[in-house]
Amino acid sequence: MKALLVVAHGSRRAESNDEVRRLTECLSAQANGIYDQVQCAFLELAEPSIPDGLRNAIRAGAEQVTVVPYFLSAGRHVVTDIPAEIDVVRKEFPNIDIVLAPYLGAAAGLTELLLQQAQQI
Amino acid sequence: MKALLVVAHGSRRAESNDEVRRLTECLSAQANGIYDQVQCAFLELAEPSIPDGLRNAIRAGAEQVTVVPYFLSAGRHVVTDIPAEIDVVRKEFPNIDIVLAPYLGAAAGLTELLLQQAQQI
Repeated sequence: MKALLVVAHGSRRAESNDEVRRLTECLSAQANGIYDQVQCAFLELAEPSIPDGLRNAIRAGAEQVTVVPYFLSAGRHVVTDIPAEIDVVRKEFPNIDIVLAPYLGAAAGLTELLLQQAQQI
Repeated sequence: MKALLVVAHGSRRAESNDEVRRLTECLSAQANGIYDQVQCAFLELAEPSIPDGLRNAIRAGAEQVTVVPYFLSAGRHVVTDIPAEIDVVRKEFPNIDIVLAPYLGAAAGLTELLLQQAQQI
């Protein structure tokens, strides 16, 4: 069983966190056949935390969890904090395969998406 | 003459700002025929500011400037701060058409891009 965990920064604004949750629902609908479950987690300021998000996925039966950072730049959060949070749960569940995908900002298709957004108006 | 201005938050980390500048160069290469110039600007912590980015584009001959926010959520920056910065320059150049495109996080294709990133590993 494969799970996808979308990791966002988290915000004091409930609307921003809800935006991530809605995105996760859309992803879930699109991930049919690729991931058996799609959840989100937050680095700070919102729930669940990254370790809790991973634990939830594992308890729901995931044997492999892919973590994808919903971040635009490779700052400290992406380079240091998210891997450290993942390591906590790797130690708890050494038989579960937890893999960290490249962050959103590194996606080659991002420029095309920005061009599309620019032409929405 | 049409210009595209990619507006990012700006960071204390020079690497993050340079990441935006590199993205802008990639966009510029792809925007051939759609935009005559593609530049970036920053809300804070990096140069040029949004008003300066707009002024640079206009001085370089732009008659229409599309501003696309390189932001993932519709927080205060997207809803209030960026429009306010644009308004400063609209008043200076009333004959120039400055339009604000939807922010990146609102792009329908974002979920697909996240799925692609997740499958990079």
